[in-house]
Amino acid sequence: MNNTFQNRINKLRERIENNQSLLLSSSSDITYYTDFNFLLPEEREAFAFITKNSASLIHTSFSPIGDYPFIDYLKGSYPNQLANHIEKIIDKEKIEEILIDAETLFVAELNAIKEKFTDLKVNNCDTAIIQNFRNIKEPVEIEQIKKACIATALVIEEIKNELFEGITEYETKIKIDKLIEKHGADGLAFPTIIAFGSNSALPHHQPNDKKLENNMAVLIDMGTKVSGYCSDMTRTFWFGNNPSKKFLEIEKIVRAAYQATFEKLKKPTIKAKDLDNAARALISNKGYAEKFVHTTGHGLGLSIHEQPSISWSNVAEIYPNMTITIEPGIYLENEFGYRYENTVLVTEDGAVELTLQD
Amino acid sequence: MNNTFQNRINKLRERIENNQSLLLSSSSDITYYTDFNFLLPEEREAFAFITKNSASLIHTSFSPIGDYPFIDYLKGSYPNQLANHIEKIIDKEKIEEILIDAETLFVAELNAIKEKFTDLKVNNCDTAIIQNFRNIKEPVEIEQIKKACIATALVIEEIKNELFEGITEYETKIKIDKLIEKHGADGLAFPTIIAFGSNSALPHHQPNDKKLENNMAVLIDMGTKVSGYCSDMTRTFWFGNNPSKKFLEIEKIVRAAYQATFEKLKKPTIKAKDLDNAARALISNKGYAEKFVHTTGHGLGLSIHEQPSISWSNVAEIYPNMTITIEPGIYLENEFGYRYENTVLVTEDGAVELTLQD
Repeated sequence: MNNTFQNRINKLRERIENNQSLLLSSSSDITYYTDFNFLLPEEREAFAFITKNSASLIHTSFSPIGDYPFIDYLKGSYPNQLANHIEKIIDKEKIEEILIDAETLFVAELNAIKEKFTDLKVNNCDTAIIQNFRNIKEPVEIEQIKKACIATALVIEEIKNELFEGITEYETKIKIDKLIEKHGADGLAFPTIIAFGSNSALPHHQPNDKKLENNMAVLIDMGTKVSGYCSDMTRTFWFGNNPSKKFLEIEKIVRAAYQATFEKLKKPTIKAKDLDNAARALISNKGYAEKFVHTTGHGLGLSIHEQPSISWSNVAEIYPNMTITIEPGIYLENEFGYRYENTVLVTEDGAVELTLQD
Repeated sequence: MNNTFQNRINKLRERIENNQSLLLSSSSDITYYTDFNFLLPEEREAFAFITKNSASLIHTSFSPIGDYPFIDYLKGSYPNQLANHIEKIIDKEKIEEILIDAETLFVAELNAIKEKFTDLKVNNCDTAIIQNFRNIKEPVEIEQIKKACIATALVIEEIKNELFEGITEYETKIKIDKLIEKHGADGLAFPTIIAFGSNSALPHHQPNDKKLENNMAVLIDMGTKVSGYCSDMTRTFWFGNNPSKKFLEIEKIVRAAYQATFEKLKKPTIKAKDLDNAARALISNKGYAEKFVHTTGHGLGLSIHEQPSISWSNVAEIYPNMTITIEPGIYLENEFGYRYENTVLVTEDGAVELTLQD
């Protein structure tokens, strides 16, 4: 594992100049490059500061840290402490520019740094520089994602058989929570979405006391985590023996949209936006363009949502060993929503569905 | 409940001028003022924008929202969408200044806003303005915190009896996860800290495969959540019949430091730093000043860590109906750490220990 982090840092280093430095503030980036695991990411327990000659983990000193010879461990991560640590490194290494990750650095942190260095260049770093190789998963990462995907698929398979008329969404959530570890996962990648009937028309509905009735749509969107790595899967199905005609119609469209997107991955090179378009064109042709309210998918790994976003505007290319979701959906207010989602591993000649167990 | 949020927004409004506006970016602040619940706070699912005349929830449109007549619901929360929504409100209401929460607004978000408004004043808001009444809990909030505290105390009581020689920290975590809902909580307020032996010397240690041995220190720091409200409690105890002399000595000091802090709350007015000093002076007098590496406590509510910080430098006064933790600790590297923590409710004439069940 020692080489894993050294290699990642070296790759990142190749992207910066001798007089530049890079401040990492996204928790999953910091984990990826330094092996530091966050207890509460919103509490800024650590930053990473990378130059051509050094790599520093600036941390609170309350949490476990690694013991890598190529990382300097510096205690104290409050904005002022952060600025002080950076000052010392900059002076020593004659750094002239700090590249920051504007999407994850707080204004107060930037202010503390700027106050310290009036004559230093502080510029936004293209997050692609930081995250480009993170998107392409290493074998050790794929292994964990696969485990998480299998656990999720097994939980969804099992919970389907535990539903009954009158169970609430919240009671279903509790049942799911109890299955997570049984199937080998460490915990949840995000709060499970369980939606009965018209509640499924809201993509991020959260379980409440709505009761399951006979002949009702059920949407479950969940993901487990294994060793920090996420999985993501959605199934929508009809509870009862008489699915409505509308449900069957929408199901057919969404499943076809999914399949069309999946097939596109067999093309040797494809852009994220073309993947999105495969699903969107199909749904639009059936007259539901405005009911497909989100992107077709997203990368996932240490974060549940990471690059590449499978969106209509993303021109990034899809590469082998990326792990992404394909998750088209149609949402009919006051009726139901239907989403179908698998986590897939992109390969040289297509993709493998990691969450497919049914 | 309708009045709850209206009243909170009105109180906040009293703190700003007619030509000012306030952009809330902390997820727990947004929940507190608008009843919006986040699925993934790091994904910026919503912002709140408050002026004298309007209150807006700027949201992704994927999650459940309230239906309050005093809130405008505006769809789209990406930085550009955020800036566009703000622009319309500012034009309409002739706003001249935006106050931001620099501690929770990302640089990219501020940049999107600044690009839009070259002649508008953008200034940092003192977070005390936003959070001052959040610290003083309403009866309905105290009720939920109490429930969470009772659940936590019951879980810790039960898990103590389930430990055995050879169980790992991680297996203990799994057992705890299964007890959460049994005792009436919705989930965890933060990842449970379980540390055996020398692992307890690190305040934020995370459970691993270390096995429990006879005659070893055990530290469990955990908190459950009920209806979004947190609890926090730590117990350190000796597993086995022969606690070391050192353990008993440290236990005595930490418990005395806790008690001294708790007693201080009986004074009619006291500052946070004086509370911290009560614990710190006692521990310092015994020669362990440098081993008490964190603050004496923190406020908690919708967030696990909120104001007031019970730190040596915080001059804020402690008021009745604040919910805070008291949690002195001593950490001896390669030996063990000892922390004792309760969540307490500050009252007119002292404090009540909400997590005290043993």
